[in-house]
Amino acid sequence: MIYLDNAATTLHKPERVIRACKYALENLSANAGRGSHPLAVKAANIVYRARKAVCSLVGCDEVIFTLNCTDALNTVLFGTAKPRGHVVTTVYEHNSVLRPLRELNKRMGVEFTAVAPDRNGIIDPADIERAIRPNTYMVVVNHVSNVTGAVAPVTRIGGVARRHGLLFLVDGAQSVGYLDVDMHAIHCNYLCFSPHKGLHGTQGIGCLCVNGTPPLNPYRFGGTGTSSHTLDQPQDIPEGFECGTLPVHNIHALIAAVTEHKNLSNRTFRRLAACGEYMRAELMKIPRVTVYGKHGVLPNLVSFNIEGMNSSATCDILAEQYDIATRCGLHCAPLCHQYLGTLSTGAVRASLSYDTPESDVEFFVKSVREIAK
Amino acid sequence: MIYLDNAATTLHKPERVIRACKYALENLSANAGRGSHPLAVKAANIVYRARKAVCSLVGCDEVIFTLNCTDALNTVLFGTAKPRGHVVTTVYEHNSVLRPLRELNKRMGVEFTAVAPDRNGIIDPADIERAIRPNTYMVVVNHVSNVTGAVAPVTRIGGVARRHGLLFLVDGAQSVGYLDVDMHAIHCNYLCFSPHKGLHGTQGIGCLCVNGTPPLNPYRFGGTGTSSHTLDQPQDIPEGFECGTLPVHNIHALIAAVTEHKNLSNRTFRRLAACGEYMRAELMKIPRVTVYGKHGVLPNLVSFNIEGMNSSATCDILAEQYDIATRCGLHCAPLCHQYLGTLSTGAVRASLSYDTPESDVEFFVKSVREIAK
Repeated sequence: MIYLDNAATTLHKPERVIRACKYALENLSANAGRGSHPLAVKAANIVYRARKAVCSLVGCDEVIFTLNCTDALNTVLFGTAKPRGHVVTTVYEHNSVLRPLRELNKRMGVEFTAVAPDRNGIIDPADIERAIRPNTYMVVVNHVSNVTGAVAPVTRIGGVARRHGLLFLVDGAQSVGYLDVDMHAIHCNYLCFSPHKGLHGTQGIGCLCVNGTPPLNPYRFGGTGTSSHTLDQPQDIPEGFECGTLPVHNIHALIAAVTEHKNLSNRTFRRLAACGEYMRAELMKIPRVTVYGKHGVLPNLVSFNIEGMNSSATCDILAEQYDIATRCGLHCAPLCHQYLGTLSTGAVRASLSYDTPESDVEFFVKSVREIAK
Repeated sequence: MIYLDNAATTLHKPERVIRACKYALENLSANAGRGSHPLAVKAANIVYRARKAVCSLVGCDEVIFTLNCTDALNTVLFGTAKPRGHVVTTVYEHNSVLRPLRELNKRMGVEFTAVAPDRNGIIDPADIERAIRPNTYMVVVNHVSNVTGAVAPVTRIGGVARRHGLLFLVDGAQSVGYLDVDMHAIHCNYLCFSPHKGLHGTQGIGCLCVNGTPPLNPYRFGGTGTSSHTLDQPQDIPEGFECGTLPVHNIHALIAAVTEHKNLSNRTFRRLAACGEYMRAELMKIPRVTVYGKHGVLPNLVSFNIEGMNSSATCDILAEQYDIATRCGLHCAPLCHQYLGTLSTGAVRASLSYDTPESDVEFFVKSVREIAK
């Protein structure tokens, strides 16, 4: 099957990643951070090395390992919430941001403003600034829209947040592994992502990257291997936020994924970009096809619809008649689809990875052309 | 190294489990429950099969996959909390129960009573019943103490909970894989455990097993692949409680772990019990050694101290001079150590698995004998 659902998760895991995972299951299965015997210390060292690898990748000071990106986002959003406070965010956010914000509204009256993009589909930092209120405490921005591929100008948005003394959270789910991210440079306090997407790591691990010592109250409560005598949750980053057993095999695989990623050549990424640009350009030429997002988009991801067809019908035809996996529906981004006017139809999303063959993209474009006829 | 820290995590993962994990990374890496294309459906089928395997293992109706046992316990404790309500629990609880309860006390005035065991070290269901107040809504019991190995009479405690119309949560971290658990038979609403302990599965996956349709509010908020148009978190079990990407490779490995476990012979478990009983009996014979817990204990786990020695000193000598990994300190169970009078020294815990050689246990006992001299 031709797999064009890499924005959900990259299907192909490099041999190095699989080997690292297997090696850890065979040799590193002790409980990291629990106990002082050499096997536990060996596992803890892997976790430490992974923290360093992630910190060096995204330019942060510390990383908290979570279940997935959603878990990381929940940890930040619930851990920073201020009763009756206000959050500025965008219509591009995923439900992993919007649903926690909705829940915070119910629990403690937190309100949020979802800023719409400009006419080119890009979030304007000036609009973020205009949405700030006296009770605003945080700006939350999706780095790359998982629907349109729109890239947010995070450096300038980070500048706005800093000028106003606001916390800045970036959802890097679709950007890490595709765009260079330097948290220090963009004045970002919290960056969340999961290695199973752009980094081709394993599922089952998320990263909450933290810069400096921004506020963060614990989200999960339990054993940390520290201060065990007290029932109060330790608040140290990262230990206080990593209750229970860490998945050492996924963490070992993450080190391999970062190494593999760093070894990829610029040529690989240029080929991916060219493939994506070709895909987008060709789809835009097809009569009766509407492509969402034009300017300032990450090329490897494109959403579209065929006139008069529901996205699920198009996806089903692509899967059943052409053996192509794409993603229909709302992509867990309801405000984005509301903005695009596609709440009732959804959209078809095709997303590439660096290992998607050009021939797959050509066949996909040809297939859409046939269906649209 | 001789590994006697199996209560923290079992070091040895069966070949079948490792193979299943690797196979999934190579062949089943699509996003389960996200998208309708065959690769996503294939991954979703693995998750479905794993649910069935767990349900059949512990006699429950449904299972929610989480990060680890702590995450599962948090999901239940925060998802059932009643403002100014009361919870009956025991001194044997792990910080993964006690710290959420402490937090609930701060947030919404939830109080809890930690019942102490009888003089044999076993929780008396009559004491649980006596601790019930008009505002009690739940009973939480550690099935097997991770410090003394004491087994709670969960069937009778479940009966008490049922008679009083209370929810019943069992922490099965140390029991699943060692004791038969049938949630229906013990009238248990929620059972939490993680397969990386007694089932020799991988880390990075926890199970929240649910019977019937007990109350449960969402704990984590985000994309569920369902009702994506609404910002309100779906409350369906399990989907509403599994936000973000599930770790399909760990879930595939869990099926293998359950199969492997079911294939183990009674002889294997009898040998493990005999090893544990021998270990406990021999340690009790050593002058200057105090063993905690005598009656009604799971034999494969024993905690002890040598007179005049801090537990960490003993563990260090065992590790450095005898190459034996044990676990010192408080085992994240402060009320248990308070009850035992070992808050300042902690205790040394040795825990076996079915693959611990008898010779390892003999060497361990001999080593403690030498140190105690």
